[in-house]
Amino acid sequence: MILENYIRTINDFPKKGISFKDITPLLQNAEATEECLNLLINSLQGKKIDKVVGVESRGFFFGILLAQKLGVGFIPVRKPNKLPFDTISASYELEYGSDVLEMHKDVIKKGEQILIHNDVLATGGTIKAVCELVEQLEGEIVQCNFLMELAFLNGREKISEYEIFAALKY
Amino acid sequence: MILENYIRTINDFPKKGISFKDITPLLQNAEATEECLNLLINSLQGKKIDKVVGVESRGFFFGILLAQKLGVGFIPVRKPNKLPFDTISASYELEYGSDVLEMHKDVIKKGEQILIHNDVLATGGTIKAVCELVEQLEGEIVQCNFLMELAFLNGREKISEYEIFAALKY
Repeated sequence: MILENYIRTINDFPKKGISFKDITPLLQNAEATEECLNLLINSLQGKKIDKVVGVESRGFFFGILLAQKLGVGFIPVRKPNKLPFDTISASYELEYGSDVLEMHKDVIKKGEQILIHNDVLATGGTIKAVCELVEQLEGEIVQCNFLMELAFLNGREKISEYEIFAALKY
Repeated sequence: MILENYIRTINDFPKKGISFKDITPLLQNAEATEECLNLLINSLQGKKIDKVVGVESRGFFFGILLAQKLGVGFIPVRKPNKLPFDTISASYELEYGSDVLEMHKDVIKKGEQILIHNDVLATGGTIKAVCELVEQLEGEIVQCNFLMELAFLNGREKISEYEIFAALKY
């Protein structure tokens, strides 16, 4: 099975000049989804994971699948004002200005082994902010994993202190 | 296991006077998540499902888990301008004004058997719009299911022509 066949490139989305990688064809195929999940799981052999953190909202898909397959809890990281309980926050730079991500403040105990998942590693700004959230709560980041890495954007340089795995590379 | 113990009530969220049911404690517990998933799956015995539709963004959690457990594809319904390919849309009423949901237009073939999932059945406006999207593509709605139903809001009246199942009732 060639997983790349289930990733659709959409030109000029969300704006002119961006080639967006659409994962919805992959989600629509149960076998492709399972194969992707297994690639992510296999990269974790020998590692202990206590919880999986997934990033709103495309990181929720494989984040919850990973958590359930590993038999551990899932923690959502969300945009501001979406999480109802007390939160911590971290900001990250955008092309113009900045944005904020939030996580509930009671979700990680000191020293817990955390897997962070998002759909895409692009410039790395988002995942760097998520790492900061986990470290605010003194969780230990075992790995940051992704369905795909857009390697030409060098996002991995922003999180070079962590183990990184991507099922697909562009 | 008492699943209600994993649902946290947050008063005055997202605004004054609303008692919000927070599912994040449930997601953080793998056993509670699995028990909830099994309740949803067991309600489908004897039914053929071709695809699962899940609603942004809390409907993504159990939507993708249901799809993967059933071995079928997952289709996200999203807020406007989030889906990159050609979409169809349906609007629904809010307290003041209205909002729109979108679905890719190539995701359902005529006659396919569709399970629709969202986290909460409240007033029923959202799920009614999702049913309209599925029917625009001539999918057949087998069931609308939910983690929980806020029965006092009578949302089930808006989708009374469909089979409805909720794992938890309030």
